Amino acid sequence: MTTPRPNSWTTFGGDLHLDLTGRRAAGAGLRAALEDALREAVQDGRLAPGTRLPSSRALGEDLGIARNTVVEAYGQLTAEGWLSSRQGSGTTVAERAAPRPTAARTASTAATAGRRPTGRHDLLAGRPDLSLFPRSAWLASARKALAVAPHDAFDYGSPLGRIELRRALSDYLARVRGVRTDPERLMICAGFGQGLGLLAAVLRARGAGRVAVEGYGLPPQRDVLRAAGLGLVPLPLDCSGARTDLLAGLTADTAGDAAGEGDAAADRVGAVLLTPAHQFPTGAALAADRRAAAVRWARAHDGYVIEDDYDGEFRYDRQPLGAMQALDPDRVVYGGTAAKSLAPGLRLAWLALPDDLVEPVARHKELADTMSPVLDQLTFAELITSGRYDRHVRRCRLHYRRRRDLLVAALAERVPGVEVTGIAAGLHAVLQLPPGARPETELVDRARAAGLVLTGLGWYAAEPDPERATAPALVVGYATPSDHAFPAALDALCALLRAA
Amino acid sequence: MTTPRPNSWTTFGGDLHLDLTGRRAAGAGLRAALEDALREAVQDGRLAPGTRLPSSRALGEDLGIARNTVVEAYGQLTAEGWLSSRQGSGTTVAERAAPRPTAARTASTAATAGRRPTGRHDLLAGRPDLSLFPRSAWLASARKALAVAPHDAFDYGSPLGRIELRRALSDYLARVRGVRTDPERLMICAGFGQGLGLLAAVLRARGAGRVAVEGYGLPPQRDVLRAAGLGLVPLPLDCSGARTDLLAGLTADTAGDAAGEGDAAADRVGAVLLTPAHQFPTGAALAADRRAAAVRWARAHDGYVIEDDYDGEFRYDRQPLGAMQALDPDRVVYGGTAAKSLAPGLRLAWLALPDDLVEPVARHKELADTMSPVLDQLTFAELITSGRYDRHVRRCRLHYRRRRDLLVAALAERVPGVEVTGIAAGLHAVLQLPPGARPETELVDRARAAGLVLTGLGWYAAEPDPERATAPALVVGYATPSDHAFPAALDALCALLRAA
Repeated sequence: MTTPRPNSWTTFGGDLHLDLTGRRAAGAGLRAALEDALREAVQDGRLAPGTRLPSSRALGEDLGIARNTVVEAYGQLTAEGWLSSRQGSGTTVAERAAPRPTAARTASTAATAGRRPTGRHDLLAGRPDLSLFPRSAWLASARKALAVAPHDAFDYGSPLGRIELRRALSDYLARVRGVRTDPERLMICAGFGQGLGLLAAVLRARGAGRVAVEGYGLPPQRDVLRAAGLGLVPLPLDCSGARTDLLAGLTADTAGDAAGEGDAAADRVGAVLLTPAHQFPTGAALAADRRAAAVRWARAHDGYVIEDDYDGEFRYDRQPLGAMQALDPDRVVYGGTAAKSLAPGLRLAWLALPDDLVEPVARHKELADTMSPVLDQLTFAELITSGRYDRHVRRCRLHYRRRRDLLVAALAERVPGVEVTGIAAGLHAVLQLPPGARPETELVDRARAAGLVLTGLGWYAAEPDPERATAPALVVGYATPSDHAFPAALDALCALLRAA
Repeated sequence: MTTPRPNSWTTFGGDLHLDLTGRRAAGAGLRAALEDALREAVQDGRLAPGTRLPSSRALGEDLGIARNTVVEAYGQLTAEGWLSSRQGSGTTVAERAAPRPTAARTASTAATAGRRPTGRHDLLAGRPDLSLFPRSAWLASARKALAVAPHDAFDYGSPLGRIELRRALSDYLARVRGVRTDPERLMICAGFGQGLGLLAAVLRARGAGRVAVEGYGLPPQRDVLRAAGLGLVPLPLDCSGARTDLLAGLTADTAGDAAGEGDAAADRVGAVLLTPAHQFPTGAALAADRRAAAVRWARAHDGYVIEDDYDGEFRYDRQPLGAMQALDPDRVVYGGTAAKSLAPGLRLAWLALPDDLVEPVARHKELADTMSPVLDQLTFAELITSGRYDRHVRRCRLHYRRRRDLLVAALAERVPGVEVTGIAAGLHAVLQLPPGARPETELVDRARAAGLVLTGLGWYAAEPDPERATAPALVVGYATPSDHAFPAALDALCALLRAA
């Protein structure tokens, strides 16, 4: 307790100086003066968002004023949105209080804010319904994991990740996806994108110059490959998935988008990146002969298949398709992720690696970030072994299937000319528009204007595709909006399509 | 409940087939037969470590045998170490049960096991006492963070990291280390090593060919810089820290360990990596004129100072030394970490970046792993804003100071010829051996043979240093052993030194 010094006080354990001098007269104006002083301290950043304020009793004693005056000032500032008050946790500076006036800057605003476009109706493909994240099951698993972890679990460890999670995943993947691996060949990584980057670095170091990719796919994955110095060879797609039968024809001197200086080594295709269970974004399952062709190519050319099994757990209509990796664990790298089944923010993914890639990929992981963080790994392992993960995935599968059925029914009823494809699995659909529809880019702009965030199919194209001009299509992620927001998003989508 | 089929049962919800045929006769041998079958299932990996077994009642019903027979079999296997049984969580396959017999392999064993040498007495520098990790405070903060996080906290987000943590850290670093930054210039990364790698990639892309480093430092940090394609220029050390006064003399055509093809651009020194608060591992604090010289050099040569503040919170004897970054936030990148104050396994670190590095470093972070995982970030933010982190750091500081005092007292009493340096801060000390002592490498080998893991000072040298031959020194991390293990580690160390 500091001695009260009228009109100028140091409080918050000495960390904040509140100067009321020259603000208002004492007496009736004391509450208003305190409000002003606190409001200013929040505005200019001396009181940062989230800072916990002293109790009204403590601040009253510090300042030598009536507790009730403080209560009233807190109440007023809470009403104005500067402070926030929660049962049991006292009064804090509101998270959305005015930003502190730092030096003007625009350069890093994009980096700070995240780069996704936002709107009222979020139908951007690639994300789950985040309201389904199993917060209490996760917390229960974290509690258990923290209770039983040995002390050295918190230490530096294997670049492959925690053995507890690799054991749990090895069993889970064998059971659910038919993956043939073991804990010694599994590596935990910070998202599939990181795993892809590490693989790309290893392939590049081994002399590969190019990687074959699907003609449509995630642009950030292509960025990762290019950043590793690899050229890309897009494979055309049809209803059986990527034309892997063309791989055998890609010798070092055929065309591709890599530099064509005739450098045979630099042109070598080191791997093919595929989404066999559910082509992203077109939705086809890779046919058996295409799977076989890819593996044959890999064996014959010392290449690898990189299997991106991004949503393999969410298949609705057909028998589950096992992982392609089982065809040849020495030639197929299996990549999986918790981004769809739990949340992208976890940055939890895994690679099941061929024997000869374990050591070099682990070495690159070690250089990149030593290893992935341990607590989420221990928690996820416990979530799996306790059976909670299975139950969660089942619940999500039902939930997304219902979403998909709602989408299909609404489109069939309200815009019957639109064909919906790619919906046997996953969290998104492709809407093929009827002949004469507006161009994709115009549709996307009109959607944005209506608060609807989605992309045209062309956004995913690895190279210009003339078909996009004559057969516009939209990619719709139907998982992301929460239940209460979904009907309005559907309405907005149907309205857009009716005017397409 | 499946129908009992004598001598061959499928149980565990159909996942495990237990075949007792031909093992032992029924009757008295039933319990032993069950034990054999379970033991084999664990040994050959069909029952993976951590697998939860059915209750004795459920398994008894599945198998059509008396519950008590199952209880006895479980008890025997638990006594043998195959199973483990915990109050309230039933019986599980023991974590340390025999590994499954997978294909023989040696290549990836190093990667799997982690690369640190191990021994009875762990005095390797660079790690905290892991038994101090505040498990319950962390869990309480995780509970709070999970309760209040908005759904979109689980989504992809800014490559800089969660705003909650950047706000909390910006305030904390200003208060505790005098860092001048704000949430828009802070980036959360997966360990300081990752941050260093991202910085190195940006510097390389901007045309830097070399980075100046301290003559002694962490070999993995030099690996990260070299992997980014940068050459290294080691700076000599003295009792005032690194000889940053020599930086101004490093023009593009002077010597260095980079290729000397006379390519001026490739030789440009883009940054100097320093540990100003507590030189790692020699322990000197960087003197004021050396700090000023580094900043002057950076301003004059469009370079940067990279400040690795790896243990800035643990200073015992002197006034806290503020971060060097405050001298010029536009030229000094400040790097901090939770590896010492909490645990290395968290992989939580941060960079306070100059304005012009925010965008390019964030772009490289995005390419590397999109962003760091969110849950640990939200939890750490809550740990800081709740005041729990401050209390934890204070507790650790007292703990490590006591450790240091014990080390110094024991050495003074038992091996007075050994000089202890670098102990005003941090978690390690340098022991200078008297003239005539054995060479460092021999001492380290003798230590290993005695179960004592530590390194010679030479292990940290950036280039061969003739002084190592005449003045052997050992680096001792005194934080790592837990309290009950520390006296024995001290005894082993003193025994080693007496025979040095």
